Amino acid sequence: MKVFGVLAACIMLLQSSVICRNLKVVPIEDKDYWYQEGKNRIQNQLTKKLSVNRAKNVIIFVGDGMGLTTITASRIYKGQINGELGEENYHSFELFPGVGLIKTYNTDMQVPDSAGTATAMFSGIKTKSGTFGIDATLPTGECDPAVYEAAKVDSILKWAQDAGKRTGVVTTTRITHATPAAAYAHVSDRDWECDSEIPSQYRDCMKDIARQLVEDSPGKDINVIFGGGQQQFGFGNGDGSCVREDGLNLTAVWEENRKAEGVSHRFVTTKGQMEELSTEEKVLGLFDFGHMAYELERENTEQPSIVNMTVKAIRMLQKAENGFVLIVEGGRIDHAHHDNYAKLALTEAIMFDEAIAAAVAMTSRENTLIVVTADHSHSLTFNGYPERGNDILGFAHNESDKKPVYETLTYANGPGFNVHRKEGAIGAEDYLWRDPTLMEDRDEMYYRHFAPIFEKSETHGGEDVAIYAIGPFSHLFNGVFEQSYIAHAVSCIGNFGPSKYLCNSSISVKAVSVLVLIMSYISSRLV
Amino acid sequence: MKVFGVLAACIMLLQSSVICRNLKVVPIEDKDYWYQEGKNRIQNQLTKKLSVNRAKNVIIFVGDGMGLTTITASRIYKGQINGELGEENYHSFELFPGVGLIKTYNTDMQVPDSAGTATAMFSGIKTKSGTFGIDATLPTGECDPAVYEAAKVDSILKWAQDAGKRTGVVTTTRITHATPAAAYAHVSDRDWECDSEIPSQYRDCMKDIARQLVEDSPGKDINVIFGGGQQQFGFGNGDGSCVREDGLNLTAVWEENRKAEGVSHRFVTTKGQMEELSTEEKVLGLFDFGHMAYELERENTEQPSIVNMTVKAIRMLQKAENGFVLIVEGGRIDHAHHDNYAKLALTEAIMFDEAIAAAVAMTSRENTLIVVTADHSHSLTFNGYPERGNDILGFAHNESDKKPVYETLTYANGPGFNVHRKEGAIGAEDYLWRDPTLMEDRDEMYYRHFAPIFEKSETHGGEDVAIYAIGPFSHLFNGVFEQSYIAHAVSCIGNFGPSKYLCNSSISVKAVSVLVLIMSYISSRLV
Repeated sequence: MKVFGVLAACIMLLQSSVICRNLKVVPIEDKDYWYQEGKNRIQNQLTKKLSVNRAKNVIIFVGDGMGLTTITASRIYKGQINGELGEENYHSFELFPGVGLIKTYNTDMQVPDSAGTATAMFSGIKTKSGTFGIDATLPTGECDPAVYEAAKVDSILKWAQDAGKRTGVVTTTRITHATPAAAYAHVSDRDWECDSEIPSQYRDCMKDIARQLVEDSPGKDINVIFGGGQQQFGFGNGDGSCVREDGLNLTAVWEENRKAEGVSHRFVTTKGQMEELSTEEKVLGLFDFGHMAYELERENTEQPSIVNMTVKAIRMLQKAENGFVLIVEGGRIDHAHHDNYAKLALTEAIMFDEAIAAAVAMTSRENTLIVVTADHSHSLTFNGYPERGNDILGFAHNESDKKPVYETLTYANGPGFNVHRKEGAIGAEDYLWRDPTLMEDRDEMYYRHFAPIFEKSETHGGEDVAIYAIGPFSHLFNGVFEQSYIAHAVSCIGNFGPSKYLCNSSISVKAVSVLVLIMSYISSRLV
Repeated sequence: MKVFGVLAACIMLLQSSVICRNLKVVPIEDKDYWYQEGKNRIQNQLTKKLSVNRAKNVIIFVGDGMGLTTITASRIYKGQINGELGEENYHSFELFPGVGLIKTYNTDMQVPDSAGTATAMFSGIKTKSGTFGIDATLPTGECDPAVYEAAKVDSILKWAQDAGKRTGVVTTTRITHATPAAAYAHVSDRDWECDSEIPSQYRDCMKDIARQLVEDSPGKDINVIFGGGQQQFGFGNGDGSCVREDGLNLTAVWEENRKAEGVSHRFVTTKGQMEELSTEEKVLGLFDFGHMAYELERENTEQPSIVNMTVKAIRMLQKAENGFVLIVEGGRIDHAHHDNYAKLALTEAIMFDEAIAAAVAMTSRENTLIVVTADHSHSLTFNGYPERGNDILGFAHNESDKKPVYETLTYANGPGFNVHRKEGAIGAEDYLWRDPTLMEDRDEMYYRHFAPIFEKSETHGGEDVAIYAIGPFSHLFNGVFEQSYIAHAVSCIGNFGPSKYLCNSSISVKAVSVLVLIMSYISSRLV
């Protein structure tokens, strides 16, 4: 097997001198290489056994906005950061045995939002965009007490609590943001994160999201809550976008209520405090006034990373005798995409994978189901014909002169449209068109990749997202499914909630198999 | 369960009056609806059994350029043509039990071409872009006899023929085009479809693709060959892009050679002639001078559809005692995308699915493995926030005034950039920007969807593609794989080719299980 020239690879990677410096020598990928790769993988596939254990523990990882293009691009970026060409890399979750595809539309939207999709994933029903914890029967942004009560749906966390399990929610966004909040709250408008956002005529009908977390089931019974969003709880002396009008300090209320319940508890705001947590039965960690920092911004903050939070949450929840259910959201992949910040989005996706790898290492395949998915995609494309090992944040090249032409990663729309106005611009074309190769800030984390249609916030994408699963019954995720199927499958596998009895038939099959084995052993002794 | 207003749906679908007229009344998708959906699907999943039969027959369907966005969008389009909202629809292959994701890069390209990817799918090795049937050791566009011989790799068709199976290739492109040709030919340049395209110094070293099909193994031994591309075989009196210089009439050569072999055979050029085929052992059908017509162009031609060809090919191949391997390419999904013809691309994808459904209906799940995948994706995005049931070929709307803003389906690049120049255009902005709502030809099949960066031919996309499988060992496709894995998995499941023994261990497992069952029966009789 011959070696692949480092020089050639470096030329391909001119855009990124860091990657070039670290580049490893890789073998020529000839016939033998791929035959061996194929055979190894088949043998690996053949050793995978179907597990029909019931899951004692369930961890659901949601990469917000982590569409398939983001997964492929971040896999390559991760490989390149590690000095490889990149394409041959895998995220840890990509080696899970269960793989499927998820249809993400909301009941009222072809391309969905995170509120409706989170309700699908966590409560097993699709609902309208912008609403969560309720079905499609309650008009968006309104409240009628009777309709509201009838429309409410329980989430996986409620099902798990009713089955005596501990529960947790971890996110890098405000804890009251759509995705995490759909796991515990019921609102007809995702913006009602604090009381002042609710129109006054509905305030008696519906509590704001932060208050639902602190006062109502299942929020008040969640054992581990880690994320951002202090302002919604009354912090900040009137700063921020969601100022409480009721004057409540909800973290104090949370502490009082837990005290009244007689459970050990603690409220924390820094990584250091979080690391000190040990035997508390309920913990609330709010590490930022708003959303937590992007991974690349995190240095010089007192914030834990998504990996830190995930590891700590699992350690706390593993103390439960009867198992646990944990939801972890990599929430800022989505935010970075909305701003066309491709580098930030890919970095967030890589850290999200690190959190998954940590969870896999800390738990058992015998009793813990781990599911990884996205709520929806984005308008990101991975286009042009870049060469192998090309900087994934770089350019596609002309075939003739190898000059960079346009970015490999572009968006269909967003603020990346006209922010990079040329010096001395006069005509409309100076706004409309730009030469990304002239951008001096291309290495900066806030560099916006190209978007041809201006939107203040880049839009989601409507194509299916992927789902990956490992542990008990992971084969239930092999297929193409409505997003609401996810909660039902978890209910079935975890033996709680509305589909709890459905997996019994497989258990019986297993019992019969064991019986047959015992009988055959007996018969072999008899003969 | 209440009904969803038809009027509201019609308003959403204003762009497409046809869809509005046919619109069915759909139920409100409330809590009960989704709970039932979830539970039904789990029960369906639980009844799926792993099959460890060996596949007597294998059919591989390749949707050229059919990325995940194309699959989702064509699924919706199909539903809308049938008078539904669209999003709730499934393609037939999306209900297959085996689902996985495929990494498509070539050894030298991050975003691949069809030649390298077809070699991966059909020969189990990745290779360089633009080349097929050889590994990465032969320089592109060159030929050295010794290196060429060493670089050649056999395809699934060769493996199957060596195992005594009949073989077939069906495509809607020229039969000498990259994807179908990778199943039988070995070239260092995919353009060498006829002799005149090969630089003269290499003509003694390497035959052109059409001649390899007619004269060399495994091409000459293929039983059913249906597609376009008569010009490469010497038709057309010097017309066309690939004029034979050697003066050969290769279809006559094909007939002579088959006659010399003593096998029943026939060459056909029309749908009528194709339908007359019955017991011939080898058949060659070339139905167009170049690529076959798009489905929407096909009326008034004498061409069979992809469904006609697939059905006929399976009927012919089913006469084989020892089973068959058939490759079917939906080749013009890719061509339509390259031209930004979204409507044509989605229609081709729908017909491709019809061919798959026909194949499923004609074969047994016990002995026939059917695999559906794409060779690579495209730069298509499905973006904006269109409402539920919105015309998939239509517009995303402003939230405020519901005015159409931009197309839901756009491309990152391509000829859709400036072809719709406004009347009286003067400045660059009239080329660069366009208002798609003013386009009067939006319903035409050749309407180009928006692309912000001009490319004569829109580029491929680099994100993973999906794979779907049904029949024996379909669970081998549950996972994320290098594209070259596909051929190895087929080899294993079909028990031919380089990985033929690898699935034996599972057969043993099955044998042991049966043995245990027999023993337990005996023991129960004894006790």
